[in-house]
Amino acid sequence: MRAHVTKKTLSEGLGLLERVIPSRSSNPLLTALKVEPSEAGLTLSGTNLEIDLSCFVPAEVQDPQSFVVPAHLFAQIVRNLGGELVELEITGNELSVRSGGSDFKLQTGDLEAYPPLSFPAHADVSLDAAELARAFSSVRYAASNEAFQAVFRGIKLEHRPDSARVVASDGYRVAIRDFPASGDGRNLIVPARSADELIRVLKDGEARFTYGEGLLSVTTDRVRMNLKLLDGEFPDYERVIPKDIKLQVTLPATALKEAVGRVAVLADKNANNRVEFLVSEGKLRLAAEGDYGRAQDTLDVTQGGPEPAMSLAFNARHVLDALGPIEGDAELLFSGSTSPAIFRASGGGGYMAVMVTLRV
Amino acid sequence: MRAHVTKKTLSEGLGLLERVIPSRSSNPLLTALKVEPSEAGLTLSGTNLEIDLSCFVPAEVQDPQSFVVPAHLFAQIVRNLGGELVELEITGNELSVRSGGSDFKLQTGDLEAYPPLSFPAHADVSLDAAELARAFSSVRYAASNEAFQAVFRGIKLEHRPDSARVVASDGYRVAIRDFPASGDGRNLIVPARSADELIRVLKDGEARFTYGEGLLSVTTDRVRMNLKLLDGEFPDYERVIPKDIKLQVTLPATALKEAVGRVAVLADKNANNRVEFLVSEGKLRLAAEGDYGRAQDTLDVTQGGPEPAMSLAFNARHVLDALGPIEGDAELLFSGSTSPAIFRASGGGGYMAVMVTLRV
Repeated sequence: MRAHVTKKTLSEGLGLLERVIPSRSSNPLLTALKVEPSEAGLTLSGTNLEIDLSCFVPAEVQDPQSFVVPAHLFAQIVRNLGGELVELEITGNELSVRSGGSDFKLQTGDLEAYPPLSFPAHADVSLDAAELARAFSSVRYAASNEAFQAVFRGIKLEHRPDSARVVASDGYRVAIRDFPASGDGRNLIVPARSADELIRVLKDGEARFTYGEGLLSVTTDRVRMNLKLLDGEFPDYERVIPKDIKLQVTLPATALKEAVGRVAVLADKNANNRVEFLVSEGKLRLAAEGDYGRAQDTLDVTQGGPEPAMSLAFNARHVLDALGPIEGDAELLFSGSTSPAIFRASGGGGYMAVMVTLRV
Repeated sequence: MRAHVTKKTLSEGLGLLERVIPSRSSNPLLTALKVEPSEAGLTLSGTNLEIDLSCFVPAEVQDPQSFVVPAHLFAQIVRNLGGELVELEITGNELSVRSGGSDFKLQTGDLEAYPPLSFPAHADVSLDAAELARAFSSVRYAASNEAFQAVFRGIKLEHRPDSARVVASDGYRVAIRDFPASGDGRNLIVPARSADELIRVLKDGEARFTYGEGLLSVTTDRVRMNLKLLDGEFPDYERVIPKDIKLQVTLPATALKEAVGRVAVLADKNANNRVEFLVSEGKLRLAAEGDYGRAQDTLDVTQGGPEPAMSLAFNARHVLDALGPIEGDAELLFSGSTSPAIFRASGGGGYMAVMVTLRV
């Protein structure tokens, strides 16, 4: 086999695969990249057993022949090449990688032993790739990386007839984003770490879904991905969304982020980074206290709702996370000092964070 | 005491001190910043017992009164402030930091217990600050961070009547930079880690030296610094600089850096990242080999000297380090396959790296 491919397209494809393929593994086969050439180009694929990923790279190919090579080493070599065009050639058990004055010989691996990866040919439904990526990105922070309960390490996707919703929660907070969708989809839970990789490969165009047994396959024009899904019952998060809003404040999200970041410097790390919110007379006063001193910051807000004043406390880290996806003005909806609060973008946009308050 | 200072100048001063003052220490006093206000501004100082650093920040001050505060916390608070102007006020044992809508109260520390720091008032000689910083930066890589022998963890400064030289070595390589100087200076060895901090505070203007007992004090218009010096005899590095050059090649330093970086991907980490250099007929061929394959790269060079060809081997890491300070064309001077080699900038500039060869 001999192939000619531009360094840029090959590097981009390898960059996606490198994130999925482990650089070390107790099963060394998993550290390999599988390359399946055809007349039109190279199909690069790899797996970490949670995610299978495959990516097509246009190339000029003669005598197509599949092979496996150490993924990270191959990617590093290609990235460092001096020329624009890369020549790949298989001779016996060796892959030659040539470009400019460089000539690399890499031992190829055992193709037969490599686990078979298969991707479905048909699609059940499709979603807008950019919307889906933005939705997953917005709520990702609320999923736990360590929680004992698996569903708290996942992101739920609810696909309704006319809209879709992603939800993540670690039991202390819920993040939700609604976005337009059509088609007859299913509800499912994607592991948050797999969602991270999905976000990275989704760009424009369509994300075509194929439902499998405990498996979701996502296909775009560039890549194909199989994701193992999480089993289990996602908690009934609707129940914690407060309905009875007693006080509402609106202020620029950036100003609030900066002020919370400031006072949090003195917040007690051993007491949930507690920051107090005191609202009254069109002012939001933030206060924090720790071993080294105390801090306060006062912001002007637009205030509404039946209650004239309220005092609440939050984990500063959680407040900053919740504000992350909000641009422009933020709306904070309070239902009481000991009830959950809603943070959302003023004027809608589909995103909402629900947070428990700390005891006052 | 009450002081008004711009956030920018105060942040810059604190930034310098933050690098020296430890964030944790078995002696918590050392984590403090000492602030000595005068009518003209604030003198910020701190120490890690290897380096004392002091920095003047212009400010408007009323009722000057010295105090100590947790350095890193104070710096973080100032950096995060929203306003341009910062007000500092001491009331009892509390420092207030105010700006825009923010008001921080920090507990001050025990001023009496803080170690006394003194900086000399006179100067013995002076050097150009920018030249000195560039010289230290160029040779820093060759000093070891772990070597058992203390002098290998230092950078030697030789101050001659009409020039100065800095030298660093870890026993396998030597880096040298000469630069213009005048005055009657001494030879001394600065710990490499202290040189790192010195590089950071030196900008334009003069670096005024005052020699103390095992101590060098460096004063610039902005800062004053005491550095503990290293004792001991620096090795006779002149002896390893090859005089009898048998083959010389010239090529663009960047092309060589890139090519060495490329082939080094396959070099054996357990065999000194060995890269072979083969020179003949106006070509430099680089070759490396490891568990996963082999690499070669060919570069055009301008070749000179009595020998028509030579084969040598180097540690790729050391080659890349040695080329670091070289811009434009690099000159490689070879005295034989088993003798040290010189890498320097073509056309002079005062920088030279001497490297041992690996066994062929």
